[in-house]
Amino acid sequence: MTTHQDRKRPGRPPGASDTRDRILSSARELFARNGIDKTSIRAIATDAGVDPALVHHYFGTKTQLFAAAIKIPIDPMSIIGPLREVPVDEIGYVLPSLLLPLWDSELGKGFIATLRSVLGGSNVAELSMFRSFLQDVITAEVGSRVDDPPGTGRVRVQFVASQLIGVVMARYILELEPFRSLPVTEVVETIAPNLQRYLTGELPELS
Amino acid sequence: MTTHQDRKRPGRPPGASDTRDRILSSARELFARNGIDKTSIRAIATDAGVDPALVHHYFGTKTQLFAAAIKIPIDPMSIIGPLREVPVDEIGYVLPSLLLPLWDSELGKGFIATLRSVLGGSNVAELSMFRSFLQDVITAEVGSRVDDPPGTGRVRVQFVASQLIGVVMARYILELEPFRSLPVTEVVETIAPNLQRYLTGELPELS
Repeated sequence: MTTHQDRKRPGRPPGASDTRDRILSSARELFARNGIDKTSIRAIATDAGVDPALVHHYFGTKTQLFAAAIKIPIDPMSIIGPLREVPVDEIGYVLPSLLLPLWDSELGKGFIATLRSVLGGSNVAELSMFRSFLQDVITAEVGSRVDDPPGTGRVRVQFVASQLIGVVMARYILELEPFRSLPVTEVVETIAPNLQRYLTGELPELS
Repeated sequence: MTTHQDRKRPGRPPGASDTRDRILSSARELFARNGIDKTSIRAIATDAGVDPALVHHYFGTKTQLFAAAIKIPIDPMSIIGPLREVPVDEIGYVLPSLLLPLWDSELGKGFIATLRSVLGGSNVAELSMFRSFLQDVITAEVGSRVDDPPGTGRVRVQFVASQLIGVVMARYILELEPFRSLPVTEVVETIAPNLQRYLTGELPELS
């Protein structure tokens, strides 16, 4: 993994882009090592040798900084925020309705490229950041609202994640036809009942 | 991975491993360029400059050669064969019952590693071979037995593929917990009704 030291060039006046770079580099290191929940803006600022206010100034909230660190081109809260208002028995439909148009968009291409390099690459830190994103942010947000079988943790949301990741693979990476060319609404309507079953339907006993 | 060099022993008649290599290399090129269906053993033999009988001698059937070319450590027919005997309304259950134990096994590790490198890598030929495998072999086999909406091609099986690929990602690559540690039977029973709905259930109108 590259750290901010690698990018430091002698002779160049310390500038805004160096500072941004140092913050991003510290963020990647700490997010990868400790996960999102256990990493504070303060700790990242300390590691980067800057004031926490500067981190907020450049990157906004912690999830926004995380999104920048893992090169997700949008603020994850733009998906998670609206989901909070949605009744739990509609999430199976609303979640893919929010995600598919995003993935299909120009912005989505960056996300797909990132995901692909994360899943396929040997970069353990990136993989660990992505896992943390799924577990600490997505799973915690949605998962806290569904009744998981006792002792199973957030397993319902993980089945949802498995279907959604599979859609990304089949549609954008493998580009299976006709799957690749189906209109968004058709993919959404086809997978929604399955996602909803994972979230609130009857599942076998899970250990 | 072991290659022919690793297996070469002094005293072994010269040529055999070179020939195997030439065949594999021709197979990869032709499978990637033309897909499985449109590539014959004869064409591969011609490209490699050997007799077709020799290709059969070394690799068996065309799917076995394909499996070797894409480094899948089993004959795909060991999954596809049994499926042919299964009533179509049980495939949603039987398919993951066959695949999950395989993926969980030692042999499966090779498959996961291959899939990961194929999906994440920049090797267009490998990606194209894997797509062809899904479309020409799996999709054609199972897909021919379900009623796809008119004009949609093999779209039902592609939704099944999306869920199964997602399970591979969540369980073996992202290693989400507790998903990673769930017993095979629990994953199978949880996803089976969703797979079966994709195969034979009512779907929205697909264009």
